[in-house]
Amino acid sequence: MPHIALPAPHPGIRGLLAFNPASGLRLSELAEQLLRGESPLSVGERELIAAYVSSLNCTRYCAAAHGATAAHRLEGDFALVDAVQADLATAPVSDLMRALLQLAGKVAESGLSVTEEDIAAARAVGADDTIIHDTVLIASAFCMYNRYVDGLAAITPDDPDVYRMIGAHLSDHGYLPQPGE
Amino acid sequence: MPHIALPAPHPGIRGLLAFNPASGLRLSELAEQLLRGESPLSVGERELIAAYVSSLNCTRYCAAAHGATAAHRLEGDFALVDAVQADLATAPVSDLMRALLQLAGKVAESGLSVTEEDIAAARAVGADDTIIHDTVLIASAFCMYNRYVDGLAAITPDDPDVYRMIGAHLSDHGYLPQPGE
Repeated sequence: MPHIALPAPHPGIRGLLAFNPASGLRLSELAEQLLRGESPLSVGERELIAAYVSSLNCTRYCAAAHGATAAHRLEGDFALVDAVQADLATAPVSDLMRALLQLAGKVAESGLSVTEEDIAAARAVGADDTIIHDTVLIASAFCMYNRYVDGLAAITPDDPDVYRMIGAHLSDHGYLPQPGE
Repeated sequence: MPHIALPAPHPGIRGLLAFNPASGLRLSELAEQLLRGESPLSVGERELIAAYVSSLNCTRYCAAAHGATAAHRLEGDFALVDAVQADLATAPVSDLMRALLQLAGKVAESGLSVTEEDIAAARAVGADDTIIHDTVLIASAFCMYNRYVDGLAAITPDDPDVYRMIGAHLSDHGYLPQPGE
């Protein structure tokens, strides 16, 4: 049960965004920019970073919702997302994505965990400054969204079909409030 | 030295915001909403939460910049900010602020560290749903800003006077880009 009384029983962060629409809008606009705005990383790759960080933070709602969104944008490859969340070392991703996800994992521990070697390892497999910037910022942002969701004990559905629907919606419509919301 | 080439040698997060003005604007707008928008918590109290979380995350730039901003908004009481950052248990704050800072500290560990008891303890000394929400969200947001700053090794000045100037500026002008920036 959420720690605060929410105005509507929306699952996950959506219930929290409705609690304070002013901060909710700013959080939604930030997600839209980071995950749908201009970037050398594809939407699927950015959603995968979000899903991976959320799984490291054990935020079940965000890990499943962004995992499903990533899968929708990565040719429906739910098995790939599951593999990344289960064991990055053996997951069938490119060398670049593995290095970026490792970097994101360091950020999830602490910004101070990121070393020159982590950055050099990402550059060695093709990352440039913008890719490094975007990876660190997305990983940082999900350390916020995850804590907001878990820190207020947001509603977390158990039914996997709910997350497939959320993923399809986020894949198609993104993060900005829809007309009528 | 920062991990990426920045367009200008601005200290701390300002250098990073300039690297990507589109995400920079969203991050600034969020900070303005959380720290200057409507809330039952004063600006000084919210800046103190930001400064405390930043000190727990060992993000020297944010801890000093928001510490100075908090002090400016708390009648110039730099000693109070120092006391909170040094040892919350003995710092001369109200029972409500101590409970909120303890809650913020739990959020900094992990959203899952927040217990029903932490929430009940805050309510027992006067916190309502909005105060709990705002505390958790501000603490979560600084887990993002801190990781962004440290994860990219932003420029961190050593001179305490720099932070006094930054604090005075943020106290007076907030977080939105100023005309001419």
